[in-house]
Amino acid sequence: MNGTSSILDKLLQARYSTAIESNRTLNPTLETLLQHRSVRSYEDKALAPNTLELLIAAAQSASTSSNLQSWSVVAIEDPERKDRLARFAGNQEHIRTCPLFLVWLVDLARLDALGARRGLARDSLDYLELLMVGIIDATLAAQNAALAAESMGLGIVYIGGMRNQPEAVAAELGLPPRTFGVFGMCIGHPNPERVASVKPRLPQQAVLHREQYNAKQVAASADDYIATMANFYSSQGMKTNGDWDQHSLHRVRGPDAMAGRERLAAALQNLGFEMR
Amino acid sequence: MNGTSSILDKLLQARYSTAIESNRTLNPTLETLLQHRSVRSYEDKALAPNTLELLIAAAQSASTSSNLQSWSVVAIEDPERKDRLARFAGNQEHIRTCPLFLVWLVDLARLDALGARRGLARDSLDYLELLMVGIIDATLAAQNAALAAESMGLGIVYIGGMRNQPEAVAAELGLPPRTFGVFGMCIGHPNPERVASVKPRLPQQAVLHREQYNAKQVAASADDYIATMANFYSSQGMKTNGDWDQHSLHRVRGPDAMAGRERLAAALQNLGFEMR
Repeated sequence: MNGTSSILDKLLQARYSTAIESNRTLNPTLETLLQHRSVRSYEDKALAPNTLELLIAAAQSASTSSNLQSWSVVAIEDPERKDRLARFAGNQEHIRTCPLFLVWLVDLARLDALGARRGLARDSLDYLELLMVGIIDATLAAQNAALAAESMGLGIVYIGGMRNQPEAVAAELGLPPRTFGVFGMCIGHPNPERVASVKPRLPQQAVLHREQYNAKQVAASADDYIATMANFYSSQGMKTNGDWDQHSLHRVRGPDAMAGRERLAAALQNLGFEMR
Repeated sequence: MNGTSSILDKLLQARYSTAIESNRTLNPTLETLLQHRSVRSYEDKALAPNTLELLIAAAQSASTSSNLQSWSVVAIEDPERKDRLARFAGNQEHIRTCPLFLVWLVDLARLDALGARRGLARDSLDYLELLMVGIIDATLAAQNAALAAESMGLGIVYIGGMRNQPEAVAAELGLPPRTFGVFGMCIGHPNPERVASVKPRLPQQAVLHREQYNAKQVAASADDYIATMANFYSSQGMKTNGDWDQHSLHRVRGPDAMAGRERLAAALQNLGFEMR
């Protein structure tokens, strides 16, 4: 075993709280990928020049369905706008304190405008499929930007709270019809005094199926994970609603717990997505 | 300018077909990200042992909404199953020839089963929001796996055609209700005789907005891109339906051109997603 493979073993140990066999050599991209943890506390420090442009180049390098590139992104640095967006997203303080806040958009407006210019039909834009293409494209792009940021020593956290009040976000950002803020992303220099631990994930048996879905393996491995997470919550001093499964189920207990997202279908209709 | 920054300039030049300023130093993760091109032609060669496990560790290291981990993946190596899946996806030959085919799933079945076991409510699973969380989670995970593969010298291509016949895919993979194959992914050793070029993307002005959405900058930069892509199509000997915008609009012209995906909403209902 060489030096880099033992770092790999350590990273895998942190991710699963148990040793898993890799027999592979670490490379710097794998190291970036495996080391991810969300960062919600930032230094009061601007990003280096051209950082945003490089993040966007990484984002645009991701796969995109049929090269339609059905996404775009709004970069926000204005403190007052960040404050308003933070309020739309349940007052998440890190939206205010990060130097750069990105709102990732499904963007079918660009194709719509190009079609209008050419006088060409674009009826598929009214279908659920094209909304899904836009969500996938935006997410692929965002994850590339996230990894680019992390490779440069920056930290990020995704903000699903952008979906709490989609119309208010759209008005704030001047979005045209057929665009939609799927999620936000805070980016900044991690506060070195508040670096989170790598969070353990479910055992591979719970998420990786061979040839066909195996429901039986899910229950047993979930029990192992519940024990792992009980230790993790306690080591981090995290207060949760019981075990991992209870805590997770509490989050999905029903529309009253969805902070506005229970009306996402109606909001999307209002924003120009017919979702036929 | 040092050696690594001039490689960075070259990568950016390939991505935009024009020089863009970076003033930054390349790192190996950025290099992996910026070098992406889809690979549809593979060597007849198995993957090294433990490759899949490492790809999944990378996938599980991605962000996931509220740590719900509402995704899973089916890994397929059986040639007959790959053949059937290829037929569901418009007979894409690379599904047959890649050594490993992954189908990435929205998976709300795991939470549903855990809720049933605890006797706890999970009414939010019936909302569009949770389907969207699953799509985002699955896509973040998949993109991490894609980048892990590329960092190891493998090539990948996403297969949206998994959505042409969602119920047939679900039956083939034995999927329980509340799961759904969002897309597939071919993985293998790239055929060195058929390496695609990096595909140019829209100018940054078309996708990057500052503070608010700027529709005006989209049209002008689209014209530049149409010219860039005309050169690219010609240099690659690609046959398209006219210019990039015409070609793209041809793809979204209406339900007749959607290869089954015009009924995605009905298919998702059949698979247990109420999408309230």
